Amino acid sequence: MYVRNAWYVASWTQDLEAGKPFAIDILGEPIVIWRNEQGVLTALEDRCIHRLAPLSLGRCEGDKIRCMYHGFLYERDGRVAEIPGQDKVPETARIKSYPVVDRHSWIWVWMGAPELADETLIPPAVGFDNPDYILGRGQLDYDAEARLINDNLCDFSHLTFVHAESFGPGEQFAISTPTVAPLDRGVRFSRWIEASPGRKRAAGNGAPSDTWRTYDYLIPGVLVMTGGDYPVGYAKARDYAPPHIDDAIGGVTFTSQAVTPMTEKISRYFFSWGPHVRHGDEKVRDLLMNLAAKAFAEDKTMIEAQQKIIDKTDAPRVLPSAHDRGVTMFNRLVERLAKEEQQRDASAA
Amino acid sequence: MYVRNAWYVASWTQDLEAGKPFAIDILGEPIVIWRNEQGVLTALEDRCIHRLAPLSLGRCEGDKIRCMYHGFLYERDGRVAEIPGQDKVPETARIKSYPVVDRHSWIWVWMGAPELADETLIPPAVGFDNPDYILGRGQLDYDAEARLINDNLCDFSHLTFVHAESFGPGEQFAISTPTVAPLDRGVRFSRWIEASPGRKRAAGNGAPSDTWRTYDYLIPGVLVMTGGDYPVGYAKARDYAPPHIDDAIGGVTFTSQAVTPMTEKISRYFFSWGPHVRHGDEKVRDLLMNLAAKAFAEDKTMIEAQQKIIDKTDAPRVLPSAHDRGVTMFNRLVERLAKEEQQRDASAA
Amino acid sequence: MYVRNAWYVASWTQDLEAGKPFAIDILGEPIVIWRNEQGVLTALEDRCIHRLAPLSLGRCEGDKIRCMYHGFLYERDGRVAEIPGQDKVPETARIKSYPVVDRHSWIWVWMGAPELADETLIPPAVGFDNPDYILGRGQLDYDAEARLINDNLCDFSHLTFVHAESFGPGEQFAISTPTVAPLDRGVRFSRWIEASPGRKRAAGNGAPSDTWRTYDYLIPGVLVMTGGDYPVGYAKARDYAPPHIDDAIGGVTFTSQAVTPMTEKISRYFFSWGPHVRHGDEKVRDLLMNLAAKAFAEDKTMIEAQQKIIDKTDAPRVLPSAHDRGVTMFNRLVERLAKEEQQRDASAA
Repeated sequence: MYVRNAWYVASWTQDLEAGKPFAIDILGEPIVIWRNEQGVLTALEDRCIHRLAPLSLGRCEGDKIRCMYHGFLYERDGRVAEIPGQDKVPETARIKSYPVVDRHSWIWVWMGAPELADETLIPPAVGFDNPDYILGRGQLDYDAEARLINDNLCDFSHLTFVHAESFGPGEQFAISTPTVAPLDRGVRFSRWIEASPGRKRAAGNGAPSDTWRTYDYLIPGVLVMTGGDYPVGYAKARDYAPPHIDDAIGGVTFTSQAVTPMTEKISRYFFSWGPHVRHGDEKVRDLLMNLAAKAFAEDKTMIEAQQKIIDKTDAPRVLPSAHDRGVTMFNRLVERLAKEEQQRDASAA
Repeated sequence: MYVRNAWYVASWTQDLEAGKPFAIDILGEPIVIWRNEQGVLTALEDRCIHRLAPLSLGRCEGDKIRCMYHGFLYERDGRVAEIPGQDKVPETARIKSYPVVDRHSWIWVWMGAPELADETLIPPAVGFDNPDYILGRGQLDYDAEARLINDNLCDFSHLTFVHAESFGPGEQFAISTPTVAPLDRGVRFSRWIEASPGRKRAAGNGAPSDTWRTYDYLIPGVLVMTGGDYPVGYAKARDYAPPHIDDAIGGVTFTSQAVTPMTEKISRYFFSWGPHVRHGDEKVRDLLMNLAAKAFAEDKTMIEAQQKIIDKTDAPRVLPSAHDRGVTMFNRLVERLAKEEQQRDASAA
Repeated sequence: MYVRNAWYVASWTQDLEAGKPFAIDILGEPIVIWRNEQGVLTALEDRCIHRLAPLSLGRCEGDKIRCMYHGFLYERDGRVAEIPGQDKVPETARIKSYPVVDRHSWIWVWMGAPELADETLIPPAVGFDNPDYILGRGQLDYDAEARLINDNLCDFSHLTFVHAESFGPGEQFAISTPTVAPLDRGVRFSRWIEASPGRKRAAGNGAPSDTWRTYDYLIPGVLVMTGGDYPVGYAKARDYAPPHIDDAIGGVTFTSQAVTPMTEKISRYFFSWGPHVRHGDEKVRDLLMNLAAKAFAEDKTMIEAQQKIIDKTDAPRVLPSAHDRGVTMFNRLVERLAKEEQQRDASAA
């Protein structure tokens, strides 16, 4: 169960070459995306109406794309512009087109009703066009349903166990819980860790500090997270309110992560991470990316193994724990929004 | 939906070693074929009646074949001749046998009622035993249903697009259509291209000519195609009737191609091609085979991608174009023949 | 259809490292097994009750095992001992535990009702702790259901055909039948071969002897086999009763083999083989193991091919032969025991 009226990440901006079609399945639907020489983006159903060949094996011709099986030519709105050997094109010759936006270095596709596409709902990720951060990036394909990755990202207590050898936050971390608060389109997690020891692996001078961590997990499955180190006593002095970023004495980074359900059991995971320009450089970024590469491989091993066990289980059930508050909150939000969509669709029909 | 009362290509004649069983699935049925030392061909169900081991792992013993699991011995007609450790063989101990014929360098298996097997229905392919042509050959396995390859071969407008970099007939080709005519067991495609420029890659002296192309696409999925270059004006002078082969000034070749549905979504594609002895030599043949290798790989890429899209599509539908006349004609013929078979079977039962 | 109240081989004793979880599916159920530093064995359902991650990716902590996804800690009986971040553990937080025993160099898991687990039902295999035999060992995974391997091992007439190039007992072997007798939990096969020529490949001085072979095939799928060479005339003198092992003049070996159904179509086959200390040494053992490696690869080829044919067959049926007496006896025993279990379960419910 997924929300359709939402922006799904399809690709990195920089991976989309002008005039070259790009193929991805989202929610089980084959989609072709291309940018023409003028930079105009188009996303269409990746399926020629003639005999169902993929347009992503086709040829971009200016604003249009041509199926390279028998030459059907498509407009940006999905209408067939030309059928070789035929004077007339039937009115019904049309495939689905998707709203598509390039923002924050990601290509976002709206999977719901096109008339409801609302760019203000694009999650506030930080892209390579943001001069405040020095980012690295990566992506992983999972043999697992996207929901399992969402669950993972809504409960960081797994850091103590899955990432004992990478992030390694220690045993204490797993028995403390963040503040969890609902958002219109997501869940906000935040916590102060007072007088925490200098972090072992990331940036920081090694002296204790009050450490702030906050992230939003947003529909359909996008994480935006920041945080930093502040003088000891700072958190209490602010009565544990979120800090001013300018007060940070180190360790400010930003990570954007997106989980895209490609099919029922295949997902693509996009991520970027890096330090604020005042708190790190390319060397810090590379250090963080090496750490992320190790940690996200640990997640993939665990989640794909979890998927295999689920597949072997008749009527799988879970036993949520105290740490699952955020997981449950996010899943209920997804369910509610998905149900509302279905009711709207039903009453419209 | 396939016609069962038809001859399906199972193998190249030259790939069948005497005394060595050969296995292939046709229409989802496992079949073992062997030729004994005297050259006698046999085709049986590839499934021992004892415990369903494949006879193709067995041993040819003269006219017979022995299952090498527990030693059941089979006659050419499928009856069990011997059960080790047992004096009597039950009357019911029998597997299916198939009519099988070696002709035109192909091994043909009749998948329908044995009593209806009619050798005059074997398509007139050209084999290596024909002294008029200098042939090369190849084969490809497709992860796609055979019908998609049949469709491909009944609409050559795809040459302009799929084969832009190999056969490359040009844009004009895709907007002209051949004459399409029904046959008892297939469809005939033919066309004159008047004053066509000398072909770029194949044989020919480079001067313009009237070019003739004709092929029959025959049940169950066999293409036989020839053609050649004639003096400019020849086509009109004959009122566009088929030419006399002796009048050709160059470029006469013959290609035989067969599409065998192995299972629902796996097919084997056999092909030979080469020049007439008066219009080419081994060098021309090799040139054509290199071209075919490139072009047929292009078809495979497109058709397997098309199959994947179809698999992702609920209730897939097509929108036939003007070029699909031959495709539709062939598919309706298949449907009609298949339905007639089913009715005959039903009334017989 | 398998008997659940039985001991299934999960692993070799020597492959289970202390403190390291080992994963295997048996009858489709994921199971984790570990031995702690004191040597105590535990077998649990390999599925955390929290979110279904496998405990086999977890960490052994003394008597307990911790899921390394979110840190749930389990007792040896399957109860959850600790949930990080939570003071109380619900009563229902419990996974399945399995009786498990280390015996004869195999780790045996009882798949039925734990209260019925009876160690006297463990088949009398010969392990590496037995000083009388010099053993080698191996294992193979089959893409085939276990029943097909059971069938194979209950009808040795296949030796003449499948193993013509390895064991090679000759044509005569396939038309003679062993004595087949029912046991409470299996079938006993035995035979005297009088004045048999010296065996070609295994130990023996090459002179004729009366050869004795006997094996029990036991629930759930365990073969224990021995035999040896005796003076010509010995068999008749004993009126064909089983021999005294001390009378053997050579060739006494022992092989233990176990077939474990991992899933519906994947099985693991464990085997050991070697000479009695009085009839061979490490060199003879290596010779036997080389022979076994060749022969068991032949079985695997045949049985996996058989499985593929079965998978292509609607409503597969077999035609048992005279040699199938033992096969049928064993399968009927399995059916009867399985049915009795189901009736007991039904009346208990």
